[in-house]
Amino acid sequence: MLEACMNNLRERSALIHNITNYVTVNDVANMLLACGASPIMADEPDEVYDITSICGGLNINIGTLNKRSIEAMFVAGRRANELGHTVLLDPVGAGASALRTETALSLVDELRFDVIRGNISEIKALALGSGTTKGVDADVADAVTEENLDAMVAFAKDFAGKKSCIVAITGAIDLVADAQRCYVIRNGRPEMSKITGTGCQLSGMMTAFVTANPENKLAAAAAAVCTMGLAGEIGFANMLPGDGNSTYRNRIIDAVYNMSGRTLKAGAKYELR
Amino acid sequence: MLEACMNNLRERSALIHNITNYVTVNDVANMLLACGASPIMADEPDEVYDITSICGGLNINIGTLNKRSIEAMFVAGRRANELGHTVLLDPVGAGASALRTETALSLVDELRFDVIRGNISEIKALALGSGTTKGVDADVADAVTEENLDAMVAFAKDFAGKKSCIVAITGAIDLVADAQRCYVIRNGRPEMSKITGTGCQLSGMMTAFVTANPENKLAAAAAAVCTMGLAGEIGFANMLPGDGNSTYRNRIIDAVYNMSGRTLKAGAKYELR
Amino acid sequence: MLEACMNNLRERSALIHNITNYVTVNDVANMLLACGASPIMADEPDEVYDITSICGGLNINIGTLNKRSIEAMFVAGRRANELGHTVLLDPVGAGASALRTETALSLVDELRFDVIRGNISEIKALALGSGTTKGVDADVADAVTEENLDAMVAFAKDFAGKKSCIVAITGAIDLVADAQRCYVIRNGRPEMSKITGTGCQLSGMMTAFVTANPENKLAAAAAAVCTMGLAGEIGFANMLPGDGNSTYRNRIIDAVYNMSGRTLKAGAKYELR
Repeated sequence: MLEACMNNLRERSALIHNITNYVTVNDVANMLLACGASPIMADEPDEVYDITSICGGLNINIGTLNKRSIEAMFVAGRRANELGHTVLLDPVGAGASALRTETALSLVDELRFDVIRGNISEIKALALGSGTTKGVDADVADAVTEENLDAMVAFAKDFAGKKSCIVAITGAIDLVADAQRCYVIRNGRPEMSKITGTGCQLSGMMTAFVTANPENKLAAAAAAVCTMGLAGEIGFANMLPGDGNSTYRNRIIDAVYNMSGRTLKAGAKYELR
Repeated sequence: MLEACMNNLRERSALIHNITNYVTVNDVANMLLACGASPIMADEPDEVYDITSICGGLNINIGTLNKRSIEAMFVAGRRANELGHTVLLDPVGAGASALRTETALSLVDELRFDVIRGNISEIKALALGSGTTKGVDADVADAVTEENLDAMVAFAKDFAGKKSCIVAITGAIDLVADAQRCYVIRNGRPEMSKITGTGCQLSGMMTAFVTANPENKLAAAAAAVCTMGLAGEIGFANMLPGDGNSTYRNRIIDAVYNMSGRTLKAGAKYELR
Repeated sequence: MLEACMNNLRERSALIHNITNYVTVNDVANMLLACGASPIMADEPDEVYDITSICGGLNINIGTLNKRSIEAMFVAGRRANELGHTVLLDPVGAGASALRTETALSLVDELRFDVIRGNISEIKALALGSGTTKGVDADVADAVTEENLDAMVAFAKDFAGKKSCIVAITGAIDLVADAQRCYVIRNGRPEMSKITGTGCQLSGMMTAFVTANPENKLAAAAAAVCTMGLAGEIGFANMLPGDGNSTYRNRIIDAVYNMSGRTLKAGAKYELR
């Protein structure tokens, strides 16, 4: 299934509109190209209606949001909903400021998302309507662990059911859930947290996977998580003495560029609960 | 001639003001440094008059444009015209939204450009005053090919004549034309299209080449295209197993950094029509 | 001392709020992660009060400033001052436009900075209340040299005394001074000037060093300069044939990622005047 999802993404050309932060945007664009999709970035309210109309998917990422880009998120999101496009929300830093939390909550209220993807702090901020986030990383005390896995799977399914969308909670263990099923994924490396934007890159790629697999959105979202984590493993295995987080960033994107559906199938580590 | 253009760029220091998108801006800056120029980025209308005044060239790129940056493009462009500076337009995504098409058309109407550089879809959108663009890449059906080369050369010369500037249409085959002459360039690799921003990087570098070679602008613009394409060939030849588009991006900039005028002369593949 | 500063930074987690330019922001974020800190970027006036409140340090960099981000700099700066956080100013391009010079001067007047870090042109623009800057690089005629070192050390101490903060002037020879003492640092490579944003990266990292070493701010600022310069030396030693400025950028960040306090102590080249 994951193999088919990746093959579909390589064969069908998905054009993805990204309204995203200026910190990691270049890596998001190169990751989209690496996985076989095409990126376009636009955040001016006056043009996002047009831009999103010619795309197949919309990736909304609220990092470095501002009043102008927030307006663009709503304009583009409404248009993408009208057209039945794939829409993903990455609530970067929800819980870290009132503006981010409120913007994320309003987006979820007013738009219809196919996927919400974040770390546990961000998803909790959305689920609870409030919360605190330490920077843009998951609070360690609130991580998904083997010990609390049953409870976290239940939480993910519950939130997915309430919002009628797929919920992806990424961290050391990744969860990708709809109301009934949850992929528990154990790919990846802890060193990935030392690269800025691996989450943003994953959100971009996940939008493309889901856009290219409309008949199988949950598996497609899980395939994106496995692809990113496996690329992290492959990239890490290729590290040489003296290499650090900057080279690791390049190697992860490179690993996605070179990954086949077959490699993904062989390397994906997941169970379905 | 191309060799001399590069040597001039290495010897004369060209300071280039870039009003450009936030997706590829870092690569544009590093590419300008790689070719021997110096970059400065500024897009606040209140300061671009000052900034462009201390520069030798102005590179206007409309990717991720917004109302503020559009205003800055006109302020800076008028000032650069007053001072007789080199001005280049990269109409990224013209045809993809009404705002981009109209902004590009207004810029061409109100400012005097030395060069307009884009893919065939973007240039057609400008030439026809309308059009459609698939993302930021050339529409395959509308590519410059060996079969339609005569017609495309004529189109490039005609458009260059109408706008009284150099027109550079880049793709698998690149055209760099004024009203009378057209360089047909066959450097480059198809894999370059899997890196975000190679076009933006080329536009930045081309602005520098033309700024450093005011007596020979057409050859300078062609030299920039050959440099970029040859760097793509050299960078590709240096790719190792496991390398992908992210590493390729670095290798192309590195290849420009290390390229001499002599190497360019030996590797440039062009004919003049 | 420098060794202890780095060890503290690795052990204590410093969350740094960056209001910085969109050209080099990704490298700043990866550099902060490389040195053991965590980055968060936000420049919307409506959220920077919240964001800076949860951080330990604030890095204000005026490259690609605009009216919105300028407002955010003041809001965040006042809040950081209230909370006694570390605050650093990087006056990128001060002297290059009236807006940059005036913004930098107003920030210095209205906020309390722990460190001001720039090249000699930028610091002079601040010290003199005016001046000219060639792009974002130091004017060669105004560089710190062995010949004018005594005078420049005196200038740095004097300006630090007047502004009651640490002043870091970076170039071929780096000065890090308070009113009484000045570190004169001779780490680094001239090739670092061919990478965009090494200064911005240093400013981000310096904010983290000072935040993690509140009891020893001057040494911490000097440790950041030595770390950056030594990383430039280590990264350069690792360059292979065909590598250029883009790969060098990655190697410098990688070198910081792998650097221990012991390596820093062994490689730092400084004297205290």
